[in-house]
Amino acid sequence: MPIYKAPLRDQQFVMHEVLGAVELLKALPRYAELDADTMNQVVEQAGKFCEELLLPVNQSGDAEGCTYEASTRVVKTPRGFKQAYEAFCAAGWPGLAGETEYGGQGLPHLLQIAFYEMQYSTNQAWAMYPGLTIGASECLLLHGVEEQKNLYLPKLTSGQWTGTMCLTEPQCGTDLGMLRTKADPQSDGSYRLTGQKIFISSGEHDMAENIVHLVLARLPDAPQGTKGISLFIVPKFLPDGAGADAKVGARNGLYCGGIEHKMGIHGNATCQMVLDQAIGWLIGQPNKGLNAMFTMMNGARLGVGVQGLGLTEVAYQNAAAYAKDRIQGRSLSGVKAPSQPADPIIVHADVRRMLLTARAYAEGGRAFAYWVALLADLQFHHPDEQQRKHAADMMALMTPIVKAFMTDNGFSCASECLGVFGGHGYIREWGMEQFVRDARINMIYEGTNTIQSLDLLGRKVLMDNGARLKAFGKMVAQFIEENGTGTGNSGEMSEFITPLAELGDSITKLTTDIGMKAFANQDEAGGAAVDYLRIVGHLVYAYFWARMARVALAHIAADGDNVEQFYRDKLAVARFYFARLLPETASRIQSARSGVKNLMEMPAESF
Amino acid sequence: MPIYKAPLRDQQFVMHEVLGAVELLKALPRYAELDADTMNQVVEQAGKFCEELLLPVNQSGDAEGCTYEASTRVVKTPRGFKQAYEAFCAAGWPGLAGETEYGGQGLPHLLQIAFYEMQYSTNQAWAMYPGLTIGASECLLLHGVEEQKNLYLPKLTSGQWTGTMCLTEPQCGTDLGMLRTKADPQSDGSYRLTGQKIFISSGEHDMAENIVHLVLARLPDAPQGTKGISLFIVPKFLPDGAGADAKVGARNGLYCGGIEHKMGIHGNATCQMVLDQAIGWLIGQPNKGLNAMFTMMNGARLGVGVQGLGLTEVAYQNAAAYAKDRIQGRSLSGVKAPSQPADPIIVHADVRRMLLTARAYAEGGRAFAYWVALLADLQFHHPDEQQRKHAADMMALMTPIVKAFMTDNGFSCASECLGVFGGHGYIREWGMEQFVRDARINMIYEGTNTIQSLDLLGRKVLMDNGARLKAFGKMVAQFIEENGTGTGNSGEMSEFITPLAELGDSITKLTTDIGMKAFANQDEAGGAAVDYLRIVGHLVYAYFWARMARVALAHIAADGDNVEQFYRDKLAVARFYFARLLPETASRIQSARSGVKNLMEMPAESF
Repeated sequence: MPIYKAPLRDQQFVMHEVLGAVELLKALPRYAELDADTMNQVVEQAGKFCEELLLPVNQSGDAEGCTYEASTRVVKTPRGFKQAYEAFCAAGWPGLAGETEYGGQGLPHLLQIAFYEMQYSTNQAWAMYPGLTIGASECLLLHGVEEQKNLYLPKLTSGQWTGTMCLTEPQCGTDLGMLRTKADPQSDGSYRLTGQKIFISSGEHDMAENIVHLVLARLPDAPQGTKGISLFIVPKFLPDGAGADAKVGARNGLYCGGIEHKMGIHGNATCQMVLDQAIGWLIGQPNKGLNAMFTMMNGARLGVGVQGLGLTEVAYQNAAAYAKDRIQGRSLSGVKAPSQPADPIIVHADVRRMLLTARAYAEGGRAFAYWVALLADLQFHHPDEQQRKHAADMMALMTPIVKAFMTDNGFSCASECLGVFGGHGYIREWGMEQFVRDARINMIYEGTNTIQSLDLLGRKVLMDNGARLKAFGKMVAQFIEENGTGTGNSGEMSEFITPLAELGDSITKLTTDIGMKAFANQDEAGGAAVDYLRIVGHLVYAYFWARMARVALAHIAADGDNVEQFYRDKLAVARFYFARLLPETASRIQSARSGVKNLMEMPAESF
Repeated sequence: MPIYKAPLRDQQFVMHEVLGAVELLKALPRYAELDADTMNQVVEQAGKFCEELLLPVNQSGDAEGCTYEASTRVVKTPRGFKQAYEAFCAAGWPGLAGETEYGGQGLPHLLQIAFYEMQYSTNQAWAMYPGLTIGASECLLLHGVEEQKNLYLPKLTSGQWTGTMCLTEPQCGTDLGMLRTKADPQSDGSYRLTGQKIFISSGEHDMAENIVHLVLARLPDAPQGTKGISLFIVPKFLPDGAGADAKVGARNGLYCGGIEHKMGIHGNATCQMVLDQAIGWLIGQPNKGLNAMFTMMNGARLGVGVQGLGLTEVAYQNAAAYAKDRIQGRSLSGVKAPSQPADPIIVHADVRRMLLTARAYAEGGRAFAYWVALLADLQFHHPDEQQRKHAADMMALMTPIVKAFMTDNGFSCASECLGVFGGHGYIREWGMEQFVRDARINMIYEGTNTIQSLDLLGRKVLMDNGARLKAFGKMVAQFIEENGTGTGNSGEMSEFITPLAELGDSITKLTTDIGMKAFANQDEAGGAAVDYLRIVGHLVYAYFWARMARVALAHIAADGDNVEQFYRDKLAVARFYFARLLPETASRIQSARSGVKNLMEMPAESF
């Protein structure tokens, strides 16, 4: 069975030494009382929960999967899932970052993200149930009316009820404009919803007493396309006070028509949901449902990126342990373990390359994702409007990068780490192949990574003439200024600063060039977008790796030979990142610059 | 269920228009009677077999898997596998390229490889049973004595019996020097083998009446390490004339102790084999078993590379069909299908990028692999010794590239093609996720891709001071000479010739530099090898894509507007390859040049 230990030291390093999170958060009245010890204790306890309750049922949950009984329309989750969920609720974990007025603990989003990371490392399929619940809560908090919030949020915050998002239909996934589910208004202010949804994660299960579905549907007079979509709340059981004439506690007219058999995340029920005159209530304004749903979607995209991080971390931990334990062959540069019949495979350069790839993406991703989580806190709770605006802009720019860059890396790293095990990695027993299978969905759901890249290049960069990108560029430039030639430590930092500055310049030129080409032909943006996201992703990681290297170098300078090994290792991984992973940008820039003609010239029928 | 059509037009293009295979083969006395029509008919019939008998049981075979009954030690293959195998044997397919003196048809290896490609596209798990049989036959043919050949080859060539290779043990995979299985000589000339083997593909099954195991084991007085390994033939049932005192038809003392549960290739039984005083006979010289086994291994590596090709092709075909059928969203450059509620997703540049990636790797891989198959024919059957030597050298150089480059691409392309389906790609029903799962093993077995890269850089390039690489370089240089500046068509070919020539130069310099570094520290080779193989792989593909582009351009020049669309498409894919895939070398060269320090500086215990 796979192993896992919460990466507490690195989480603390990121929160306190890289991001200075406590200081930033204490500037917000909401978190005025926060301190580093509290944060560390929460993360430690959360890690313990994941190690002790989620990890043990991850592999068995994959093997067993969810089961659906057609006669009763009941979905059963794998053994142990419900028990883990009960313990989770009993400890108050569902409301970690929830609003105190609805029973939550009101802790920063940053801690929720740190918890997510560990949940996804230990059991992504399980973690999707409470994860979607938090997303639904956030959506209701922002877009629901007072009665809706009072009715649903306490139950969602305690975990008694769980949530879903019901968007996809057989004929529409990416293109929600083609959505067909109908909502007919009733005289009591409720609606009757009819239609079919597919790919609904956690759509039906046996872990909670009620399930609150957030459903996109069309009003009778709605305009065509995305401008005619409204958002509804459709509970599985009608709660008291919901407002309909229907009987309290009655089973609503939406049910699971079947579950999908998938490549991975077997423990999460991916449901076909049938709505047959289901009773629902409008959330927010008519025809503005997509905007409201995007609140949930953006949070979910951040969460999905962190799924990529969690899987990278756990795959790394297992591969590293195996590489230190498995003896096979001798080092090319001479015997390293003369007392054993062979050397541990960690002596081999390429085994280290595979491991360091995963480690560099995990540690870089952690710094990045935790920073974005901090932005979420600042965006909503900073007293200064300018700061809220800046955080919101950065969030908007970074969300597609978190989602796509981190999940690309999650899949490729899980596969590299499987490779460390050789043939044993391909066998279910070791658990590595499950990480690869689970990781693949993260590149797809909540908007495919292609969609993320179009969002980044089209909407987030080109549409505002690069203003958000320039704002991030300013942060990078300031860091370069502080650590570049002419200041102290310039020699030590130059191996990081020089490529970072060069990449920043390349991106500026590339963005201008693509923008000009796209002005003439929008397909040019489509043809460059995926490469572009990888390039900007590396700018972000290079920036964070340079910051982490600076912290490490400062400790090494201060403590000399007595420095904690952690900082030496951090510096080594930073160097690996710059030498071996950042060069991906060289290829990507060539590809992005090659233009769209090489993609479009072949006629469709020739494919 | 996935679709598949044998890519006959492209296979013919490669065999006849690119490689000129008939002319080359007719120069060998063995194939003097061969003609293009025969070759095309064989491929066409073989394709029909794959489409009609293998494809229909691929997805069901994956879902069902093999089953093992502990009490009887019997392994059952999925429904339909045995029937397909019976039809396969009845049609004489097992002996396609087998020796006529043992009942084979004596056709070129090239046709066998073309057949393999289609088998692997339609059912890799099934195809491994007869594939290993051919490998065992080749090994026996080269290393067995006359009686062994007469006894075993007719049955293997007819498919009545199947073969396996038994190398791996729990404590040794890559490092066969640690092998422990023992072989005790008996007075009757036979041996008694005792030990445990794992990961034995097709080790036990219900498709054939006997299974012939080629087993690596140690003689009592054998030297330690790889120099003390001998090869034995160990049949499941003792055949008449095998030479032991044991009863003819008796069940031998080797049995399946269990089968593995794996990520993919569920239809192939991956067996733990227990040898308990199993009766076996030596093949070849004592302690020279690894050399003999490498005959089989090299053939198997070529086959595994073609597994990567087959999966790339079938994944491409399915994704292309889906992309033309699925409507979703509108083209960024304006509505393309006004009569429909959305455009087919093939209008999107990035969907085309994913598809063209798979297509360029499939078509490039086909030209490459078929050329290597031709080399196998020339290596064994060319009347001129120089030519045999040249073919053998090229084979040796190309084998690790076939194996690693093509299987890397197979996995990444299967994953890209899954991505074309969005969420539907993740659902079992569409069959795409099976291709990804099946493709992952190809990067591991028959020597991991890391091992292939060490074989290429260390053994095949540096160890002979680059002689083989230079021989290939000469072929490339000659092509450049013929098509470069100063000759006709120079303008049209320059977009291919210029980058090809540049990459050739870069590789020459890179090889020298790595060689010098590795001379001082062998780990430098280990740290550069994986990048190096990808770089040389691209040189090979760029060479074949340039050759294919030349053929296409010649047809376009000759036929003008009436040219077959096939050639226009070929040119378009060639351009895509040079613009979008070849640039991978830019990153890889940077990474390979970065040296091994960034991999080795962190102490093992810090991982």
